[in-house]
Amino acid sequence: MTVWLVGAGPGDPGLITAKGLDLIRTCEALVYDVLAADELVAEAPDDALLIPRAKLKQAEINAILVELGEQGLEVVRLKGGDPFVFGRGSEEIEALRAAGIACEVVPGVSSISAVPGSAGIPITHRGVSAQVTVVSGHSADGGDLDYDHLARTPGTLVVFMGVAHLNRITSQLIAAGMAPTRPAAVVARGTTVHEERVDATLDSIAQDAADLRSPALLIVGEVVAVGAAQRPGSSAITA
Amino acid sequence: MTVWLVGAGPGDPGLITAKGLDLIRTCEALVYDVLAADELVAEAPDDALLIPRAKLKQAEINAILVELGEQGLEVVRLKGGDPFVFGRGSEEIEALRAAGIACEVVPGVSSISAVPGSAGIPITHRGVSAQVTVVSGHSADGGDLDYDHLARTPGTLVVFMGVAHLNRITSQLIAAGMAPTRPAAVVARGTTVHEERVDATLDSIAQDAADLRSPALLIVGEVVAVGAAQRPGSSAITA
Repeated sequence: MTVWLVGAGPGDPGLITAKGLDLIRTCEALVYDVLAADELVAEAPDDALLIPRAKLKQAEINAILVELGEQGLEVVRLKGGDPFVFGRGSEEIEALRAAGIACEVVPGVSSISAVPGSAGIPITHRGVSAQVTVVSGHSADGGDLDYDHLARTPGTLVVFMGVAHLNRITSQLIAAGMAPTRPAAVVARGTTVHEERVDATLDSIAQDAADLRSPALLIVGEVVAVGAAQRPGSSAITA
Repeated sequence: MTVWLVGAGPGDPGLITAKGLDLIRTCEALVYDVLAADELVAEAPDDALLIPRAKLKQAEINAILVELGEQGLEVVRLKGGDPFVFGRGSEEIEALRAAGIACEVVPGVSSISAVPGSAGIPITHRGVSAQVTVVSGHSADGGDLDYDHLARTPGTLVVFMGVAHLNRITSQLIAAGMAPTRPAAVVARGTTVHEERVDATLDSIAQDAADLRSPALLIVGEVVAVGAAQRPGSSAITA
């Protein structure tokens, strides 16, 4: 028995990995985040135990994974995006290892590049950006950010966040010295059929994107002006 | 007809996306990077045109993609990792769009998180790192790095590079003020059966990892000490 931490990808169910999909289709228990697509949960065997994360605390999820592992089940822990990108995957691994339960990680497509890319923004582009800085704007994920440092960051800045935090984040970047006219975009619910993109500048994006729904990514930098819109949309699982 | 830019993932063929695998299996022409796994190329239909990138220059690849697109073929351009993470995907899109050819991007699992993760290093970890900075240490990808800035970067630093550049990169980080004792690791050929990981400190990693083979990632930061080794290895495509 093994507990598999599987990255579900950024939203589009077609962006699950082949290996991850295979594990879902053969698992005995599936513990899944709210960000994992319904289509992926539907791929689990009919007799598999399905456990939504819902409002469970991290310690509760850890305990459930340990208990399922101790029962000797093949368990898939399906996490939004990639387990190690603000996903707290390593906390679950630590809990499982402490209990002597085998666990493995299957990486997923992270929103870092896929969500901007889906909306037509390449996070790196020759001659425009050769550096990407990624932070979480959810205060629960590491406390306050080092805005003085971020304001001087060259290249592309990608912020994982809820839309509710947008005004605070952009205001603090400007207060720390980042140019208010710097190109900025928000992509909400990226790679899904509900994807929305709003382009503005750092000083106006909070107002312009206020009506978007989470989850969302803020992208700041010259790459926002590169490229053109892709056709977003959920893809059927046919493999 | 469409030209699909598909991310092949970091090495393990099982880390292709379900959508990307489906496109490979139904394409009429496959143009693939040397970093794309042989197992993925083998998934193309028997009568598909197979074109290895080999030593072709970027402009030549762009021209080939345009020509295949103009022939009305369903084309998959299979790129290592993710097309927009130092992958020059947006240059290929620009060339195709300029020629009036439809193109779409299917994101892939980037090495950013998957390669450290495969070797047991979470790039984010609660209380340890809530920021990830990603740069390319190949001088062709954006010129010299801003070492003064990078030396003061909090959180995790991930450098895409050839092993040959390791000494130059670490020396310049130290010269710019980064602590020589900072934990550092190199993961070579991550997520494949040839994966190797070497742990050291910033001032000794270049010597300790000198014998590893490219492609490799340098990871600098406290996360190197978190977690434990995963079981690496190539996975069969069964989906």
